[in-house]
Amino acid sequence: MTQPQKHTWKTKLHEIIYEADTPAGKSFDVVLLILIFLSVVLVMLESVSTLQAEYGKYFYIGEWLITIFFTIEYILRVISIKKPSAYIFSFYGLIDLISTIPLYLSFFIVGTNALLTIRALRLLRVFRILKVTRYIGEGNKLAKALKDSRPKILVFLFAVMILSVIAGTLMYIVEGPEHGFKSIPVSVYWCIVTLTTVGFGDIAPITALGQFIATIIMIMGYGIIAVPTGIVSAEMAKGDKPKPNAQKLHLNTQVCQNCGAKKHQDSAKYCHECGYSLHYE
Amino acid sequence: MTQPQKHTWKTKLHEIIYEADTPAGKSFDVVLLILIFLSVVLVMLESVSTLQAEYGKYFYIGEWLITIFFTIEYILRVISIKKPSAYIFSFYGLIDLISTIPLYLSFFIVGTNALLTIRALRLLRVFRILKVTRYIGEGNKLAKALKDSRPKILVFLFAVMILSVIAGTLMYIVEGPEHGFKSIPVSVYWCIVTLTTVGFGDIAPITALGQFIATIIMIMGYGIIAVPTGIVSAEMAKGDKPKPNAQKLHLNTQVCQNCGAKKHQDSAKYCHECGYSLHYE
Amino acid sequence: MTQPQKHTWKTKLHEIIYEADTPAGKSFDVVLLILIFLSVVLVMLESVSTLQAEYGKYFYIGEWLITIFFTIEYILRVISIKKPSAYIFSFYGLIDLISTIPLYLSFFIVGTNALLTIRALRLLRVFRILKVTRYIGEGNKLAKALKDSRPKILVFLFAVMILSVIAGTLMYIVEGPEHGFKSIPVSVYWCIVTLTTVGFGDIAPITALGQFIATIIMIMGYGIIAVPTGIVSAEMAKGDKPKPNAQKLHLNTQVCQNCGAKKHQDSAKYCHECGYSLHYE
Amino acid sequence: MTQPQKHTWKTKLHEIIYEADTPAGKSFDVVLLILIFLSVVLVMLESVSTLQAEYGKYFYIGEWLITIFFTIEYILRVISIKKPSAYIFSFYGLIDLISTIPLYLSFFIVGTNALLTIRALRLLRVFRILKVTRYIGEGNKLAKALKDSRPKILVFLFAVMILSVIAGTLMYIVEGPEHGFKSIPVSVYWCIVTLTTVGFGDIAPITALGQFIATIIMIMGYGIIAVPTGIVSAEMAKGDKPKPNAQKLHLNTQVCQNCGAKKHQDSAKYCHECGYSLHYE
Repeated sequence: MTQPQKHTWKTKLHEIIYEADTPAGKSFDVVLLILIFLSVVLVMLESVSTLQAEYGKYFYIGEWLITIFFTIEYILRVISIKKPSAYIFSFYGLIDLISTIPLYLSFFIVGTNALLTIRALRLLRVFRILKVTRYIGEGNKLAKALKDSRPKILVFLFAVMILSVIAGTLMYIVEGPEHGFKSIPVSVYWCIVTLTTVGFGDIAPITALGQFIATIIMIMGYGIIAVPTGIVSAEMAKGDKPKPNAQKLHLNTQVCQNCGAKKHQDSAKYCHECGYSLHYE
Repeated sequence: MTQPQKHTWKTKLHEIIYEADTPAGKSFDVVLLILIFLSVVLVMLESVSTLQAEYGKYFYIGEWLITIFFTIEYILRVISIKKPSAYIFSFYGLIDLISTIPLYLSFFIVGTNALLTIRALRLLRVFRILKVTRYIGEGNKLAKALKDSRPKILVFLFAVMILSVIAGTLMYIVEGPEHGFKSIPVSVYWCIVTLTTVGFGDIAPITALGQFIATIIMIMGYGIIAVPTGIVSAEMAKGDKPKPNAQKLHLNTQVCQNCGAKKHQDSAKYCHECGYSLHYE
Repeated sequence: MTQPQKHTWKTKLHEIIYEADTPAGKSFDVVLLILIFLSVVLVMLESVSTLQAEYGKYFYIGEWLITIFFTIEYILRVISIKKPSAYIFSFYGLIDLISTIPLYLSFFIVGTNALLTIRALRLLRVFRILKVTRYIGEGNKLAKALKDSRPKILVFLFAVMILSVIAGTLMYIVEGPEHGFKSIPVSVYWCIVTLTTVGFGDIAPITALGQFIATIIMIMGYGIIAVPTGIVSAEMAKGDKPKPNAQKLHLNTQVCQNCGAKKHQDSAKYCHECGYSLHYE
Repeated sequence: MTQPQKHTWKTKLHEIIYEADTPAGKSFDVVLLILIFLSVVLVMLESVSTLQAEYGKYFYIGEWLITIFFTIEYILRVISIKKPSAYIFSFYGLIDLISTIPLYLSFFIVGTNALLTIRALRLLRVFRILKVTRYIGEGNKLAKALKDSRPKILVFLFAVMILSVIAGTLMYIVEGPEHGFKSIPVSVYWCIVTLTTVGFGDIAPITALGQFIATIIMIMGYGIIAVPTGIVSAEMAKGDKPKPNAQKLHLNTQVCQNCGAKKHQDSAKYCHECGYSLHYE
């Protein structure tokens, strides 16, 4: 499979839908992005009962138009790739399918609430499009700093959890169900609400001892909030320094038509995963 | 337009009103600053119904005195500049106009509430005056650190938004309108209230599953709050190091009388935008 | 006591229960970890009245099974160590005992609530197991950064305390018992709730002066929250730099069978505390 | 006044009361510290109405004992210093006087509430004692980092203030008095409560537009909280690096008996402010 490909309508389509290096590919992504946002806004507006009562009909029409577009897009994605199964069973392939079918299903099943949920998953599709351009933006650095400090953050979160369970149990015994601390899970929930300095106030200690323990939890939360910040700060400060042996590679948005592999270098001629030609004649 | 200007009353006036390098110019700025603050305090006090009932008359007189002063200032600003349109249609020029006319309009229109809003915009004028002295203060460094880390912060805020929409939709389905999560937009609002650790408590999850999801959102918010802090910290730590090739330029507060350009160097003789002479004979 | 030990069943048992270097020792720790979490989940679920009403019988059986396992484990721990008193009166020894007996005591005493508390202490046992593996994970670095910045954090917390007492007293006088600020301790509690940005809202200032003071407290809390973060950030940034004179020691999880001392080096042949042989023949 | 002093009872007393380099001086400071805390705890407990009803008599006796001790201490402080006026009219001199007299005044005046306030000021005396030892502790570094970053923090707080006023005015117009936003000052108060992520929830936006603006304010608060943290972090990271030209001076706790000047070096023989001898024969 090493001979250059023919510029058939399939490879052309693949280039437009999966990649963003050509003007047509870029335009397609922009249109898709707008439609995704529009569709999510529609889902949100439909949930507002006053708007649904008045403009429900227009929402319904808009919803159908977007669903039809997404259906066509889905079919084209399946057609233009060499191995359709590689797309269909990929993470984004499943989200594309799941977020498109609920409207069709609503003809047969009546429970609209559950269908509504699934449509909101369309928002996840945004990440696919952004993924394409992330090598250019700052998102890459940010994701790296978060990823590098993940083990530290996990250890830290684990300690916070154990602390919350112990403090929550203590509050359950001190305040008891009569002051809103109905059970240990609820007390632990309250404890996390307090430690993270969110503090809803739907549950609040009333006894003097309960308030005293709450004070200690809050002071600890105050000191503890410093830890994840310190971790990420240190990681980002490191990340800003140029690495002596690192070499900047210019990655493009090409996707192998055969296996779907990404992150090809600008100078790459063949897919680094399957050896399929990336050049078109 | 390269011959030195005459020291006419217009150039003198320009120097006083637009610049802050002469004693008269400085005094004018200080007086203006005080009047702006006074006028904003007046607007605030007027809104307190008990104070308005008792001292309303004095507020009215004070408001008129300040408005007349600002009117005169506005006219002088228009007169003293060579190209009045450059000032009138600039950002601050429009704010000056908009924040001065509501009292005059109140003779013709009755809706006082809307007028009140506009008067509060006067506060934005404070930034014009502070802008003049920002090259000396620490504000410059701060603004630079924020500006440099803007792309990172935007990427981060975008991720927070998408997270909020998905988590908000989830909470709407789990808790539903009967527990205060009236619609998806309201749920997203609650989600941001929780992620930012504000936690008003006007809406709070009641079901066990809702409280569990809330816990995850809060723990994420806890970890996420570290990111903008890390970004700015790293940026500020960088900012404190002296740059080897940077050269300190002493900028003054002179404003070109012809085109309104700013940021002239101390040694500059002609405007770097239009070539108009900055020196007076 | 310097001659090599015999590989009796006691030394074998010691190795399994107290250490984590052999496969059997590792498996034992994993089983223990799972049982501790299971038992804590049980205690939490029992406190939910609806679940207790329905599945109370199964909870009771599960609780007994776990308690019997912990009882056997406790007896084996006492038997396998040379000096049982070193284990029995150690911190974890006492927790093991205290968290195991409540169920047995429930035959004689009726107050179940107090017993329930003690069982939750089992969660502390988790730290013993984690302690063993902390030399490998990131927890070590984190704990070091926290420990190194402890004096700074303590000085800071002390300042926060004094500030809270003074501001709390002020709020008590300004707002008074009729607005929820019942006494100075309650006002101080409110003040810490506000300074740490938790903000339950169960108590909130109502008078204009009270709200003004609250504003100042909040702004201060905003500025103050930066301090612990700054401390830990600086400490962590330092911690990431390799220390020129530091030498990496490979510590293992061996525990001296004679005195219970830990942190032995991989190459150690005798306990660094009592000289007892660590090798088995 | 350059001849060495005689070891009179006055100089001895001065050494004990004002300094902490001798064993007697240290003991005096510890006793004073304990009494101050005890007296503040007393003031706090007195405010709890149930405790006051039951133990009021004991509180009264304890209060008198402490007041008498503080009175004697005050008189000794005045006697042992060469220039009594230097102490009496100093910041701590005034606090000593003000926090001691309320109980005596309560014989003549009846308003106990106002007197109570003043007694709580005793807590400020703690700082005098701690000040003495701050050169040894970490407090010094912390205070320096805060002091160095003060201009940046002030600029930042000023920006927060202006933002709050503008956003507060906006919320007042959008939500209005009928939703709890009674006046612009109250709206600004709410805005600061939200920006600082405290979020009491006593006032919360109800209209869709109000909630939208609140969301923006919160997101801004989220980004803004990073700034003071970044400032202090950068400052602390700097502070940890050794300065090449700095020389460590060992300051002691001696206080000039003549003028009250502090911060004498260990090797100092004469007061650096008035030339009075610091040595005793």
